[in-house]
Formats: sequence, C-alpha cells, structure tokens
Amino acid sequence: MQKIKFETDYQEGCHPKILDILSRTNLEQTSGYGIDSHCERAKNLIRKFINKPDAKVFFMIGGTQTNTTAIKFLLNPVEGVISVESGHINVHESGAIESTGHKVLTLPHHDGLLDSEDLRKYLAAFYADEAYEHEVQPGLVYISFSSEYGTLYTREMLENIKSVCNEYDLKLFLDGARLGAGLTSESEHADINDIARICDAFYIGGTKNGALFGEAVVFPNPEIFNAKKLNKFRTFIKQQGGLLAKGRLIGIQFEALFDDDNLYLKNASHANKQAMKIKQAFDEKKISFLIESFTNQQFPILTQEQHKILSSKFDYEIWQPLEDNRLAARFCTSWATSDEAVEKLTQEIKTL
Amino acid sequence: MQKIKFETDYQEGCHPKILDILSRTNLEQTSGYGIDSHCERAKNLIRKFINKPDAKVFFMIGGTQTNTTAIKFLLNPVEGVISVESGHINVHESGAIESTGHKVLTLPHHDGLLDSEDLRKYLAAFYADEAYEHEVQPGLVYISFSSEYGTLYTREMLENIKSVCNEYDLKLFLDGARLGAGLTSESEHADINDIARICDAFYIGGTKNGALFGEAVVFPNPEIFNAKKLNKFRTFIKQQGGLLAKGRLIGIQFEALFDDDNLYLKNASHANKQAMKIKQAFDEKKISFLIESFTNQQFPILTQEQHKILSSKFDYEIWQPLEDNRLAARFCTSWATSDEAVEKLTQEIKTL
Amino acid sequence: MQKIKFETDYQEGCHPKILDILSRTNLEQTSGYGIDSHCERAKNLIRKFINKPDAKVFFMIGGTQTNTTAIKFLLNPVEGVISVESGHINVHESGAIESTGHKVLTLPHHDGLLDSEDLRKYLAAFYADEAYEHEVQPGLVYISFSSEYGTLYTREMLENIKSVCNEYDLKLFLDGARLGAGLTSESEHADINDIARICDAFYIGGTKNGALFGEAVVFPNPEIFNAKKLNKFRTFIKQQGGLLAKGRLIGIQFEALFDDDNLYLKNASHANKQAMKIKQAFDEKKISFLIESFTNQQFPILTQEQHKILSSKFDYEIWQPLEDNRLAARFCTSWATSDEAVEKLTQEIKTL
Amino acid sequence: MQKIKFETDYQEGCHPKILDILSRTNLEQTSGYGIDSHCERAKNLIRKFINKPDAKVFFMIGGTQTNTTAIKFLLNPVEGVISVESGHINVHESGAIESTGHKVLTLPHHDGLLDSEDLRKYLAAFYADEAYEHEVQPGLVYISFSSEYGTLYTREMLENIKSVCNEYDLKLFLDGARLGAGLTSESEHADINDIARICDAFYIGGTKNGALFGEAVVFPNPEIFNAKKLNKFRTFIKQQGGLLAKGRLIGIQFEALFDDDNLYLKNASHANKQAMKIKQAFDEKKISFLIESFTNQQFPILTQEQHKILSSKFDYEIWQPLEDNRLAARFCTSWATSDEAVEKLTQEIKTL
Repeated sequence: MQKIKFETDYQEGCHPKILDILSRTNLEQTSGYGIDSHCERAKNLIRKFINKPDAKVFFMIGGTQTNTTAIKFLLNPVEGVISVESGHINVHESGAIESTGHKVLTLPHHDGLLDSEDLRKYLAAFYADEAYEHEVQPGLVYISFSSEYGTLYTREMLENIKSVCNEYDLKLFLDGARLGAGLTSESEHADINDIARICDAFYIGGTKNGALFGEAVVFPNPEIFNAKKLNKFRTFIKQQGGLLAKGRLIGIQFEALFDDDNLYLKNASHANKQAMKIKQAFDEKKISFLIESFTNQQFPILTQEQHKILSSKFDYEIWQPLEDNRLAARFCTSWATSDEAVEKLTQEIKTL
Repeated sequence: MQKIKFETDYQEGCHPKILDILSRTNLEQTSGYGIDSHCERAKNLIRKFINKPDAKVFFMIGGTQTNTTAIKFLLNPVEGVISVESGHINVHESGAIESTGHKVLTLPHHDGLLDSEDLRKYLAAFYADEAYEHEVQPGLVYISFSSEYGTLYTREMLENIKSVCNEYDLKLFLDGARLGAGLTSESEHADINDIARICDAFYIGGTKNGALFGEAVVFPNPEIFNAKKLNKFRTFIKQQGGLLAKGRLIGIQFEALFDDDNLYLKNASHANKQAMKIKQAFDEKKISFLIESFTNQQFPILTQEQHKILSSKFDYEIWQPLEDNRLAARFCTSWATSDEAVEKLTQEIKTL
Repeated sequence: MQKIKFETDYQEGCHPKILDILSRTNLEQTSGYGIDSHCERAKNLIRKFINKPDAKVFFMIGGTQTNTTAIKFLLNPVEGVISVESGHINVHESGAIESTGHKVLTLPHHDGLLDSEDLRKYLAAFYADEAYEHEVQPGLVYISFSSEYGTLYTREMLENIKSVCNEYDLKLFLDGARLGAGLTSESEHADINDIARICDAFYIGGTKNGALFGEAVVFPNPEIFNAKKLNKFRTFIKQQGGLLAKGRLIGIQFEALFDDDNLYLKNASHANKQAMKIKQAFDEKKISFLIESFTNQQFPILTQEQHKILSSKFDYEIWQPLEDNRLAARFCTSWATSDEAVEKLTQEIKTL
Repeated sequence: MQKIKFETDYQEGCHPKILDILSRTNLEQTSGYGIDSHCERAKNLIRKFINKPDAKVFFMIGGTQTNTTAIKFLLNPVEGVISVESGHINVHESGAIESTGHKVLTLPHHDGLLDSEDLRKYLAAFYADEAYEHEVQPGLVYISFSSEYGTLYTREMLENIKSVCNEYDLKLFLDGARLGAGLTSESEHADINDIARICDAFYIGGTKNGALFGEAVVFPNPEIFNAKKLNKFRTFIKQQGGLLAKGRLIGIQFEALFDDDNLYLKNASHANKQAMKIKQAFDEKKISFLIESFTNQQFPILTQEQHKILSSKFDYEIWQPLEDNRLAARFCTSWATSDEAVEKLTQEIKTL
C-alpha cells in the first residue's frame, strides 16, 4: 500500500478547475509562445491582483528557470546576487545562477530570512575594502517569500531591506514560488501591495499552488528599467529555454487561479490550514520544531523512534540530521491535502 | 470570425487521450522531478520503440532547452557544434547554444539537409589550416529530422554523415522535434532503428506531435559516454531549468503516446496525410514550392494576390520574401488538423 | 640557417626604446594592477592623441581578451555582435566571444570590410521577421582598422556605418590591433579624430606595433554609457583575466609609444613603408594580390613554383589555397623589419 | 618622498637577469603564441625541475586567467570547485570562475589551509543528501601553496587531501602563484616532488617571484586525462585570452628562472629571508600575528597607534580590521626587497 505523501507541495497534478478549463479550451487554436488572449487576460488579472496596472508580466514554466532568467536580466556580468545561505538559488538549483556567469554571495539566514542589518554590514565592509574592484560586485538581493523554512517577511522587514538596497544601488528580487502560502498565513507578513511596491521584480508561483506548472514574473514598476532591455525579456526567456511553445497553457492556468474565484488564495489558504492542524498535533505532543513556521511547510524534530513510526505510514522529507541523533523532518501540505490524510497523520502523531 | 490556423503544429492543446489520462491520474501522489512510475514506464516504452533496451532516456519540457542541454553535455568548452545555416539552433533559439559558451559552426543547407561531402570538405580544410588551434574546435554535428524545411535524411545519408563523424571523432546529435512527421512520411527516409543505431543522442519531440509539451532525450548507446558524466545528466537538466517539478506529467504523456495504441505515429501520420492533401491542391494549381516536403510542413510560393486571398481566411507563416515579390509561405498541419479545415483550405486554393 | 620571417608583426620583442625605459624604471616601486603614475601619464598621452580629454582609457594585455572584455561589456545577454565573416572575433579567437555567451552574427566582407548597405539590409530584414524575438538580437557592430586583409575604412564609410547603427540603436566597436598601420597608410582612410568621434569604443593595439604586449581600450565618449557600469570596467578586465599584476608595464610602454617622439606612428609608418617595397616588387613581376592592401600585410597570389622558391628562404603565412592550385600568401612587416631583410626578399621576388 | 613599499610581491619590474636576457634576445625572430625554441627549452627545464619528463607544460600570463582556464578545463558544466573561503578564486578574482559557469563551493580555512577532514565530512554529507542531484556537483579541489595567509601544506596534509579526492573521484589543483615562497620556506612543507606526484594539475607562478609576468601550468601526469581534450588545452588558453602573441617572452623568462642558476628558488629564498627578519622584529616587540607564516607574507596585528607610525613611512596592506579596533596588516617581501629597506622597517618596528 502506498504511503500518504507529505513530501512536497507538487506531488499531485493540478486543481480540478484548471484541468477542466484546459479541457474546455483544448481545441482552441492560438498562436504559440504566449501571444494569445488567455495570456493577455491572465496578465491583466495579475495586474489587478497586485494593483499595478502598468506592471510587465511574463509567464515561465518553472522556478529554477525563472530565478535564473530574472537574475541574468537584473545583473551585469561582473555583479553577483546576494542571498541567504539557505536560499533556493544557492542550494537547490544545480548551479543554474553560476551557469549564467554570476556568483551567489551568501549571508547567514535567520530562520530562513535575510536580516537587513547583516546586509548593511556586509555592504559597508565590501566597499571599505580597497581591493573591492577585484571582487564580485553586489548587484541584487534575492529573498524568498515564503522562505525555504516557511517563514515570512513583515512589511517592516522588507522596507528595511529595500532601504539598504537603495543606499547601495541594489535591485531587490523576491522568489514567490510559495507566495500564496505567505500571503494567506495567519502570522504577520507583508501583503501583496507591499511586495509590489517594494520589490523591483518578483514571481508568483503556480507550480506549488495548484497549477500543473507555471510561474508569473512581474516587474511591478517597469519604468525603473532600461526600456529597450526590458522589451527583450521574452528573448531572455527563450534563450533560457523557458518560453513554452503552447504558451497559452500557462495563461489558462493563471486565468483560473486569478479570476473572481480567488483560487490562488483559496488553494494556499487550504494548504496552510492543513499545515496548522499538523503543527498543532506536534505542539500537543511537545515535539519541537527546527523553525516555527505558519505556512505549509512544517519542520518537526523527531527522534529516531518517532521517525520510524511515522515513516512507516507517511512519506516526508528528512530535512537535516541533528547532532543529538534526532532529525529535522519536513511535512508539506498543498491545495490537494485532504482532511482524511491530515486526520490519519495527526492521529499517528498522537500515538508517539 | 477567427481564421483557421495553419501556422504551426503547436496551436492546439493536446490529443484528448492525453488529457483524459492526465485527468484520471490527477490526484495520484508521486515524488517530484520525474522519479515516479509513470516516467519509468514511459522510458521503457521508448526503449522498446527504438529497440535499445539499455538506452538512457530523460524527459525535458521543450525543444530549445533540450537542444541546449544535450549540446552542452556533448561538447567541451572549446568545441562548437556544426549545423546547417537553417538549423533551429542557429536561427530560432535566441542564442541559447551560445549562451552556454559554444559557437554554432554553419554549413550551407541543401533543402534543409546537411550534405556529408560539405561536412568532409569543411573538416579537411579546418585541420589543414595551421592556425586551427586558434579556432573553435568542431565537436558535434547537429541535424534535424524532419528538417526545418520538412525534408528527411535517408539511411544512406545518415550513414555517410556518421562516417565523416567517425573519421574526425565528432559526435552526432539529431533534433527530433518533428521526429514523428519524419518517421511516418511517404517519402524515403531513415527509420527509427537507423536513427537509434547511428546517432549518439537524439530526442523524440512531444510538443509538436500531440503532447501538451515534453521531449524525450535518448542516448541509445550509453556505453560510449563517460559513465560518471552521463549519470549527472539530470543535473544538467536541472541547471538548465528543464527539470519539471511535476515531472510525472511528461511521463504520463509519453506513456499515452507510446503504448500499444501507437498514438505517436498515428498523430504524425494524420498530420502528414492532411499536409499531402494541401500539397496536392497547390500542385494541381501549378503553384510551386520553395522546397518539396512530404511531411507536415508545406512551403508553397505565393504571389501577393494569392497571399491576399488565402490570408484573408487562413493564418500561416510568411516564411521568406522572394526577390520577385512573391513569398514563400509555410502551412503546418498537426494531429489536430481536421478534415473540415483542410477541405476549406483546399477549396480556397482551387479558386486562386 | 634560419629563414627570414615575414609571418607576422609580432615575431620580435619590442622597440629598443621600450626596453630601455623598462630597464630604467625596473626597480621603481608601484602599486599593482595599473594604479600608478605611468599608467596615468600614458592615459593622458592617449587622450591627447585622440583629442578627447574626457575619454576613459583602460589597459589590457592582448587583443583577444580586449575584444572579449569590451564586447561582453557592450552587450546584454541576448544580444550578439555583427562582424564580417573574416572578422578576427569570428575566426581566430577560439570562440572567446561565444564563451561569454554571445553569438557573432556574420555578414559577407568586401576586401575585409563591412559594407553599410549590407548592414542596413540585414537589420531591415531582421526586424521585418515576425519571429525576431526568437533570434539573437543585434546589439553591436564590430569592425577592424586596419582589417584582417590590411584594408581601411574611409571617413565616409565609417559615417555610413555609424548612421545605420544610430538608426537601429547599435553600438560601434573598432578593433585597432593594427590601428597604427591604418593611420599611417598612404591610401585614403579615416583619421584618429574620425575614429574617436564615430566609434563608441575602440582599442589601440600595442602588441603589433612595437610593444612587448599591451592594448589600450578607449571609450572616447564615456557620457553615453551607464556610469555605474563603466566605472566597473576594471572589474570586467579582472574577471576576464586581463588585469596585469605589474600593470605599470603597459603604462610604461604606452608612455614610450605616445610621448613626443610619436613612436607609435613612426613604428607603423616604417612597417608600411617596408610593405610598400614588397608590394612594388610583386607588382613589377605582375604577381597579383588576393586583395590590394596599403598597410603592413600583403597578400600576393603565388604559383606552387613561386612558393617553393620563396619559402625556401623566407617564412610567411599560407593564407588560403586557391582553386587553381595557386595560393594566397601573407607577408607581414613590422617596426622591426630591416631594409636588409626587405632587400633580400625583393631581390628574390625579381628572380621569380 | 615616496614611502617604501611592502604592499605586494609584484611592485617592481623583474629580476635584472631576466631583463638582460630579454634584451639580448629582443631582435630574434620567432613564431608567435609560444611555438618557439625558448618555450620548448623552458618546458624541459620545468620537467626536469619537477622530475616529470612526460609532464605537459603550458605558459600563461597571469594568475586569475590561469586558475580560470585550468578549472574550466578540469570541470564539466555541472561541477563546482571546492576551495577554502579565503581561496583566491573565491575572493579576489572578480568572479572569474563563476563567469565560466562554475560555482566555488567553500569550506572554512584553518590558517588559510584546507583540512582534509572538513573535506571528507562535506562530501559525506553531500552524497547523503537525497537531493544531491539538485546541487552543484563537487568535481575538483583547489588549494594554494603557499596559501593566501602564507602557510604551507606538509606532505602528509597533501596526501590526506588526495586520499579524500580519490575516494570521491575529485581532481586536485594547486595554485602556485607563490610556489617559490613555499618551496624555500624554513618551516615544514611538501616539496616539489610531492606536489608533482600528488596534484593532478598545478601552476608555477612567475609574476610573484621575479618575472615581469608569466605562469606555467603543469599537468604532471597527463595520462590521467582524456588525450584529445588535453591536446586542446592551448585552445582553452586562447579562448580565455591567455595566449600571448609574443609567447616567447614567457619562455625566455622561465628559461632564466629555471636554468642552472636556480634563480626561481634564489628569488624566493631571498624574499623569505627578508620576511623572516621582519617577523623577528615584530616578535621581539611581542607584536602578535593574525596567522604565523614562514613565507614572504607577514600578518602582524597592529594597534591604531602602531599603524599610524608605520604607515607614515611604509606602504603595506590593511588586511582586515579586528573587533578590538586593532588591525591585521600584511607586509610582503620579494626578490627585490633590499636589505636597506628591511633595515629601515625593522628599525622602525623597534621604536613602536
């Protein structure tokens, strides 16, 4: 019998509504590469969602290619991107950023988040070094929302980071692979208006929130960029292999996610709600967490005994072995996580 | 009223059978990134299709990223890839190959095809030049089947090219974005066994033959490669942004295309059949072709008058303006091209 | 006995004056990487030479690294550089340009030169193609002065090229590896003021005109560039491996070349004068040239018999085999070519 | 009055013997790009020096380009290079390694050195991670001898590192920018036979040991490499802009450094001897060091008061500000450091 999976938030297909619309539109004929009415409408829905009617929106297929393309666009060849050590681009993208010629400059993370004071100190020290022109030039700050540890920036934290960026003429890019989980979390967090106001570019993740695939890159304030270069962003996408031939497939999915139904937020909200039940179950057993998260990723610390029991019935990730022989696990929920699955897991946790 | 489109072979969604299987499997839970039973089964179906039980098969999303990843894998940094000038990698991939550091070395095309004698002469002259170590080193030959002009290599042509490759220690890579159209053409052509025997690597295109997206990279004879490096091919894919999170989506589609139904060949055969009707209609009007093709791309040469009439009811590509004020057009058919659409087009052609 | 060499213009060390100054300054202590008074003075001499007091000047070691660094600086990642097919960057730099991610877009050459009408037609056709965003974007025009065939642009030719560049928002870069030979040629040619006025960037070659090594990259009109990026040009140089630790060595050499002596022009003038004697000797024997050059490279067409005789006493390059079994040779002169060596060669030519 | 400089080991020209030979050979005619008898002889002298008659030796101009070219050669595109955080490639090469597509994977340094146990633990953890194919693959270990802190590996340390490399199929590359200082140090250290036996590739630095410029890349055991690829190493050099047109200049310098005189070792020995006098002077004043070095770089920790005094008469690098308001300085000596200069410095130190 297959175990119930809490490994990731991309282990099922897509929300049935999306599949339904894909079926209904299947035989429509459209031009390729995202030049079609579905993509146009989806972009407008996104512009409305973020309250930025002039935003430039582009569709891509997956997160790694989105990060790589956006960062390649945002940097010049001698610049690097600043990220916390736990940043996805630093750890889990097989060197995609470096493959385009750019160094990832790392700072320590604080529960997965970048601290604006760390950033300021790093930059002050960088420019104080007489040999700084022999080093990779900081050009961009990369942050994730929600972070790789499920944590969230508040509005104030974003503004502090942005303030340092302004001081040192850096751009700010937000990886929104799990933007939905962040926006619908019960804990304090920046909202979409903050993000669209503060960030120079960000993306809205579809893959991890109910789409088959698809990410929407947003330049909320396009006037800050060289217009000629920004107009070539689709060529950047094509060069990086991210321009889907049947581009309307992404447009259709984002239409489904951002129309009046608010499916994007509903999906994320459901995932978070299920995660909170799991969190509560661990809390009740006094099982502590590597990091406290109020989004769809939970990182309980398990003894080998507890792990043996849980892993016999459930799949989840071993996030990190700890020195005391315990391990930090990761349980993920998604739009698809059923009440039944959560019930089985929480019942099992009670037995630990 | 929307015009009927003959622009490309990727202007509809996917074959309904695929959508049906995607729906039926939608709530299955699988691990991400193509480590799942659907992908495993699809790989086995492909190995059977090509009669190479030991072949290494990898799934990617789209053609440009497939070419880029495979070529990056097959070359070392000072090597370039030889292609005819009309090769997709040379013309329509936004410099993706060069973005990974490699020059595309071009030879003239003959109806879209590479001539083995051109290749031999180029290589002989290259190594006869005393300064050849100051030039990009030829490392790989890239060919397309069917070609960008819808034409096909025969077995003998492939063998001749391979013979030159062997003589000069070059690898041979075949772009199979339109492999199906080639394999099911009524004109003489290499078959899949030839291709799997002669090529060092190739890919089987799904996007242009009825899948939503997806290409299968095949190393039919993996023993000729450095095993350690080939084992890291998935990391190459990830680095290039081509590793789909919900990887099983590609596996499922290739299962549907290569199971007992032979949908892959049926789709292509249907597209070719519809193209032959269109070809016949132009032939009957004594309208000549830029290049004679027996696959799903047709390149009639139209006068401005004829173009005005046809383009009022149909969308197709203007392939190339000609010097006498005529233009070469491209009409594409696909698995989805209906008898009714073809009938309307051929009737219109009769009126020209 | 060693043959007399006419292979290249870099087969001896350097002009004795340079060696003398290197000796006299040898034990001076300076900071590294070109931050020293010699480099400062040399930059000022160059600014004076080109009549551009605000020009930005940077020193590099060799031509390939100079072209690569400048072009990498001048392009964004989806742009390519336009060059004639015979351009050094296209043929003899081992793919250095492509190694930084950029395609070289080629046009036919006319006696080694780019024709502004070819350029205009290419660009018009490029933007007329609906699929142009799937292609490498033209971003820069590369020309050589003197060209790889020893030929020269006139002021009018440069202005025509620049006019097309302006029309299509392209930058213009001039490879001046053999700038001296161009500036001192007896044939009509643009002068240094034209070049500094018309080009967005160019370099002044030292290696092929009497220095041990060293090229000076010039941005004559720095105000047209993003100031922040241009201020990081030294980091571009460092990243490309072109920032010499003992940077003052290049400064010292350019001081020697551009002080009141005018050694830069004297060296080149000498080379040209010797080449004209050789040209005349071939002319008198009615031996024709592949291309007529009035600079230090001469390309006579030799029969096998003539080649056998000359090559028994002299080294020169076989430039290109011709179809009628003759061959085009290249004879190069330099600042170091002695009257005696030329006399021996011209005497031998008389015997042919 | 100019201060006496102890900033670097490349602040003067070159050893007079080299300048003398450059003068004597100046008007010799040789072919370009290092295909000449001086380079041949120099390679043979190096093969003799390292006791590896079959070694492949290549000449390059500077350290950054040497590291970049060698590492690009030694890695495939998904592999990264392991270095301590203080490694030159990680800190002071403006992202040259990343510009060729490779991540620098960092480990903590121990007085500038890589610890083989750190390496082993890192690799064990790397391969224990289920997601390791989503990460940059370790392909090479980079170490410096002497290190960026003037410290040295013993034979045992090198053997331990190599043993881990063998276990995990990694290559080992040694940056010998300051190889001479290491080989002639009075402290325990690996000798040249150890290095040539244990390392897969290394380079012998000329720039920092008395040459005008020039580094010799050595593959002591060429049989371990793909022969076809190694035969193209000159093309790698050319592509990276490191192939000097007047290549014999490097050959001549290495002839001068490695002929019977043993100038290479004499230069380094002199530098070390001068450094030891400076070390002793600080020791006698009980001024401690950031790291204890027995080579030509010394890192005393100065109070602001001491710094004010010394910096009024001497130039040296401020290596690192310390938290207690003191600073670590770096004093460098070289082949050119005179007894008089050292005497002045040591006298001044006595007054502190």
